[in-house]
Amino acid sequence: MPGRPFLQIPGPTLVPERVTRAISQSIIDHRGPKFAALVHECLAGLKGVFQTVRGEIVIYPGSGTGAWEACLVNTLSPGDRVLACVNGHFSAGFAKTAAAYGIEVDRLELPYGAGVPADQVEERLRADKTHQLRAVLAVHNETSTGVTSNVAATRAALDRARHPALLLVDVVSSLASIDFRVDEWGVDVALTGPQKGLMLPPGLAILAVSDKAFHASEKAKCPRAYWDWAPVLERNKRGEFPYLRESLAILNEEGLPNVFKRHARLAEACRRAVQALGLRILCQNPAEYSNTLTAVVMPTGFDSDAYIAHAWKTLDLSLGVGLSEVKGKIFRIGHLGSLNELDLLGGLAGVELTLKSFGVNLRLGAGLAAAQQYLLETPSSQ
Amino acid sequence: MPGRPFLQIPGPTLVPERVTRAISQSIIDHRGPKFAALVHECLAGLKGVFQTVRGEIVIYPGSGTGAWEACLVNTLSPGDRVLACVNGHFSAGFAKTAAAYGIEVDRLELPYGAGVPADQVEERLRADKTHQLRAVLAVHNETSTGVTSNVAATRAALDRARHPALLLVDVVSSLASIDFRVDEWGVDVALTGPQKGLMLPPGLAILAVSDKAFHASEKAKCPRAYWDWAPVLERNKRGEFPYLRESLAILNEEGLPNVFKRHARLAEACRRAVQALGLRILCQNPAEYSNTLTAVVMPTGFDSDAYIAHAWKTLDLSLGVGLSEVKGKIFRIGHLGSLNELDLLGGLAGVELTLKSFGVNLRLGAGLAAAQQYLLETPSSQ
Amino acid sequence: MPGRPFLQIPGPTLVPERVTRAISQSIIDHRGPKFAALVHECLAGLKGVFQTVRGEIVIYPGSGTGAWEACLVNTLSPGDRVLACVNGHFSAGFAKTAAAYGIEVDRLELPYGAGVPADQVEERLRADKTHQLRAVLAVHNETSTGVTSNVAATRAALDRARHPALLLVDVVSSLASIDFRVDEWGVDVALTGPQKGLMLPPGLAILAVSDKAFHASEKAKCPRAYWDWAPVLERNKRGEFPYLRESLAILNEEGLPNVFKRHARLAEACRRAVQALGLRILCQNPAEYSNTLTAVVMPTGFDSDAYIAHAWKTLDLSLGVGLSEVKGKIFRIGHLGSLNELDLLGGLAGVELTLKSFGVNLRLGAGLAAAQQYLLETPSSQ
Amino acid sequence: MPGRPFLQIPGPTLVPERVTRAISQSIIDHRGPKFAALVHECLAGLKGVFQTVRGEIVIYPGSGTGAWEACLVNTLSPGDRVLACVNGHFSAGFAKTAAAYGIEVDRLELPYGAGVPADQVEERLRADKTHQLRAVLAVHNETSTGVTSNVAATRAALDRARHPALLLVDVVSSLASIDFRVDEWGVDVALTGPQKGLMLPPGLAILAVSDKAFHASEKAKCPRAYWDWAPVLERNKRGEFPYLRESLAILNEEGLPNVFKRHARLAEACRRAVQALGLRILCQNPAEYSNTLTAVVMPTGFDSDAYIAHAWKTLDLSLGVGLSEVKGKIFRIGHLGSLNELDLLGGLAGVELTLKSFGVNLRLGAGLAAAQQYLLETPSSQ
Repeated sequence: MPGRPFLQIPGPTLVPERVTRAISQSIIDHRGPKFAALVHECLAGLKGVFQTVRGEIVIYPGSGTGAWEACLVNTLSPGDRVLACVNGHFSAGFAKTAAAYGIEVDRLELPYGAGVPADQVEERLRADKTHQLRAVLAVHNETSTGVTSNVAATRAALDRARHPALLLVDVVSSLASIDFRVDEWGVDVALTGPQKGLMLPPGLAILAVSDKAFHASEKAKCPRAYWDWAPVLERNKRGEFPYLRESLAILNEEGLPNVFKRHARLAEACRRAVQALGLRILCQNPAEYSNTLTAVVMPTGFDSDAYIAHAWKTLDLSLGVGLSEVKGKIFRIGHLGSLNELDLLGGLAGVELTLKSFGVNLRLGAGLAAAQQYLLETPSSQ
Repeated sequence: MPGRPFLQIPGPTLVPERVTRAISQSIIDHRGPKFAALVHECLAGLKGVFQTVRGEIVIYPGSGTGAWEACLVNTLSPGDRVLACVNGHFSAGFAKTAAAYGIEVDRLELPYGAGVPADQVEERLRADKTHQLRAVLAVHNETSTGVTSNVAATRAALDRARHPALLLVDVVSSLASIDFRVDEWGVDVALTGPQKGLMLPPGLAILAVSDKAFHASEKAKCPRAYWDWAPVLERNKRGEFPYLRESLAILNEEGLPNVFKRHARLAEACRRAVQALGLRILCQNPAEYSNTLTAVVMPTGFDSDAYIAHAWKTLDLSLGVGLSEVKGKIFRIGHLGSLNELDLLGGLAGVELTLKSFGVNLRLGAGLAAAQQYLLETPSSQ
Repeated sequence: MPGRPFLQIPGPTLVPERVTRAISQSIIDHRGPKFAALVHECLAGLKGVFQTVRGEIVIYPGSGTGAWEACLVNTLSPGDRVLACVNGHFSAGFAKTAAAYGIEVDRLELPYGAGVPADQVEERLRADKTHQLRAVLAVHNETSTGVTSNVAATRAALDRARHPALLLVDVVSSLASIDFRVDEWGVDVALTGPQKGLMLPPGLAILAVSDKAFHASEKAKCPRAYWDWAPVLERNKRGEFPYLRESLAILNEEGLPNVFKRHARLAEACRRAVQALGLRILCQNPAEYSNTLTAVVMPTGFDSDAYIAHAWKTLDLSLGVGLSEVKGKIFRIGHLGSLNELDLLGGLAGVELTLKSFGVNLRLGAGLAAAQQYLLETPSSQ
Repeated sequence: MPGRPFLQIPGPTLVPERVTRAISQSIIDHRGPKFAALVHECLAGLKGVFQTVRGEIVIYPGSGTGAWEACLVNTLSPGDRVLACVNGHFSAGFAKTAAAYGIEVDRLELPYGAGVPADQVEERLRADKTHQLRAVLAVHNETSTGVTSNVAATRAALDRARHPALLLVDVVSSLASIDFRVDEWGVDVALTGPQKGLMLPPGLAILAVSDKAFHASEKAKCPRAYWDWAPVLERNKRGEFPYLRESLAILNEEGLPNVFKRHARLAEACRRAVQALGLRILCQNPAEYSNTLTAVVMPTGFDSDAYIAHAWKTLDLSLGVGLSEVKGKIFRIGHLGSLNELDLLGGLAGVELTLKSFGVNLRLGAGLAAAQQYLLETPSSQ
């Protein structure tokens, strides 16, 4: 295909040209001083992105699912109980990983499209009078439904219940795109991968870990070797990847608050387009709309998997599929990472065109005009 | 700026990722056998792009303006007379280069927005009973106005007048985007650069030369050294650049007829958008609309230079300026090279947005809907 | 520093320019058909490199140490007993990972510089009359000492003892450099990373797994989630990385037998240089010399860590440090991956120069002449 | 071939990885403000490299031979007389270009291997009592013979003869490698290309022009269009290439005096190796030895073209051929650009190996030991 592909999936996101160039640097000696300097710069930069001063950064070659495992085996023991908030495909996966290690999982089950309800969390914690629950597991931005939960409210629930459980949060599709604060919100482990807001290729598991979590790790008895973070902390004194540095530089130049605002603005433009086309957003509560992706309910009578294949085939347009319970029923528009107004409008133009040619009844240009109108009224912060 | 820049100028065009990677190859020994093999492959590929079997390819480090000079000094002598068809900034430049070498230039003056009229060319040639005119100079696709002239008709005019003048044609912004045929149309020298339809960075002057032109060069007396094509033909047996090969492979995979159809389809979509917004196209005759760029007349009361600066500043959107006589009065939308439907729609969305925020009265989405409707009705050839 | 760095460590190796270019390709949709086609091509290519028809390939984002864990948790249960051949830093690490999962490890302890003695393995297996030992763990090429063990002989030992234990082999620094055959040698799991003979950046754990190992995994009870190979086998029907393809193409073009011969030839040239300089090789048995690295004993009175820092600082020359028991006592010259005669001679010239300037008594050029003489007598297979 | 090629030709030199990455940046709008800022930075940087404050920089897409033409057509008229110092293939080419424009060339003929003799220049100028000679043409570093002429002495000759001729100097293979000073040595035009000391790919003609030369250009009557520097000076206010900036940054970080010292040190090491092998250097006068290349006389009975093909074929080692009068009689070892000690020693190891396998009688390692010894005694300035 000529031209540029439009990768409108909720990650991996487009890798900025600057990062691609950084990646193509020669291998450097991982025991040499250049490498060590890189490490320190990258660790410091990541702390800024996680908005933590007190936490430590732990990095592995791995993935987001590896990060779940690293988070759990370092803080818990077989037989421990945890409360897992399950509101989609990925939060269910987080819970399942815990179960694989013999951890007993109390599930707080929520429908697809809902966020984590702080009041129900509080209720469950108050009911646990003997503090059997060692941790609360939550996903900040559930990538399968486009719902952002209020982590600060969950923290407040823990505090009000005076419960000592660790707060373990998956921020895979929100970090560096949607405001997230490790220290202020008292998060004990926040875990992510590089391929979303950090705009890197996949291949790393990245964690920010609180003191409290480190103390927990001393008593945790899950078998662990690769994911053990003790040796990683020692290695931290020695090294990390050049492309990470470039990604941090890019975020720093724009400024995290501006990054958050840009994502919020593009997300709202996308939602206005979707609604102007007469389509429904899966997320039920507007306060929980995700600024990194929008899950759109497919009109009755159409299969979203078939539609996504059609868009890919006719216009090289990539959209996210429905996962688990909403397979075939929704498609997801990613709008995160290195993305600007015209990238988004080009992608939305493709959504209109391909829905129309797939047989969905809509007026061409209607969504675009709504998005344009919103963008016009809310000038960019740059 | 996050995201991808929208470079909607009439070249240099976006360099495809594959070409960028080819360019980043290590320097190879220019006297070694690998280099020689590359030369032969590239020369053969270029002949295909020029649609010539009988012609020879001549390449220099240089530019399109260097190609004018190479074309002229190899075929003409000081004091020779030529007929130059002047219908824009670049055709005027071609004529001026001839004058710099002491060549007498008869100008066939045409208004900005007009193509080369074959009947007037024929008339001038018939009037030249003693065959003083050594060459006819024309620009196939006048980049400053978005007008494509009918070169086959010009050839027919020469034939009908039974005039032996050489036909020298600038195809800088049409080759590999708009159908152009060296052999069938009897073109003696066709000249171009790499930065438009060939999707490469600038930096070369590329010519296809007929036998007749080579014969002329034996008697031509313009001083020449760098641009002398005799040594180049010898060097042709020895070398050229790797990235050229990648560009040819890309064109070959899509197929030249499909490349032409894609440009025609995207160009028409662009024109429909422009007209749906109530704007006027500079090119007067629809049969001469350029499929690589559209020159749009700025509404009265607005300065196009100021508008282009505004688009660049607010959305990182690059548009072409008005040159020479139409400076400040038009802007040009490039739609050539490695470009697809969503790239174009993203760019047009930016034109709508920035015209609106610049104060032009228009309905957001109107142009986009017209372009989408046309694209929907005319499925891509791929 | 101007010029090219000489990375004479035993991996990561220099990444060939072709691979670097492949890595810099845009992210492609990991659920699209292009990605799936890549997977199948890469899996088939890797089978060829492992010399297996019957085995399956399993890949994770991870590292060589992650590959140890993936190998162990899928085939063993807590409380199982294994025989671990320990002859260096990395074979000790493999054994330690098993212990972390509650596996009981019988260590066959060997001095640094020795290979795995097949007769002692046989003796241990014969002594285990009730077949308590579930697996034999070995490292094909012990990277910390430059010793290549005879895996075929170890297989024969298992066969002679009629023992059903699995044969689990680390081939991190030998695969695609030194001849290694999964099927012919009856290896049950062979594990590696991409950053040595495959000439890629680090970041993957790659395993070749036999039917017998898969059967074992059905009963294995180690907790596992990330490293569980069942879901990976399903994912194998869907995807892997472009740069892997390029690496396989490079190996294929040279031909594996030629790759092995090239490594053997360069390794012998390196050893002759080392000996001509009057230095001692750590590996005791010439039949076990490693063709991917040479561990050199530092002359008495000199600290190898200080020497390596000196080489790095004065000539940008990277050499491998001594690990564990031989820390400060040896330095290691890597000669694997994308390496040719002049790369090696440039590196050896640097070893001579920096040993001399570090105070070691030697004759400049003596090692180089010995290496050159050997290379002259044994023409390359290319 | 595995490993890195050894490109031991006198340019194009190896392009540093940083430059390659800079080149792979996306096309930017050549009329936008980013481009303009680049121009100013590059022009200022080049002035530093030419060691001029008063001169102006003029750049064209082109080559070193294009730079000859640009230099001549801007300063001279047909019928003018010039004194051309001819001591090799390239100085002869410079003179020939002048002749192509109708300029009368007085040749000061010198044998291959000799430098420009200031006393003979002075004599010729004194004999020209009526100041018919408009310019003196010289090549600072004659790339075909490895001879560096003393430009300061030539300037002094002009001054002593009180002659107003322009001093036009080709610095293609010396700039940014061997000390060269436009202002201090009163050079009127210095011309070069990017592919030697500037470590870039070929494709530009770069000139530094004095006030006196600009004044001359006002009266010069050679036909000119492409090479006319008047419009270039205007364009200078608007743009140049990103990779040029990276090259300048690299030179700046090392510091020009250190660049010169590094070239001098590596060149002397190379010459010691050549002499230790019993081979003769073409350059007659040690004071004129070139620090960017060494032309080596092939031993009697051997053809250097055949030898160079042999080196290329057996070891992927590229050496420079003999040109014009010394074709088949010499080979040239380039040692310029981004080159360090081990690159050079690797290349010299290849020269020894391939001479030996070609049948030349020599002792392996002898040249290397001499070069190593010299490098050991003269520590790098870094």
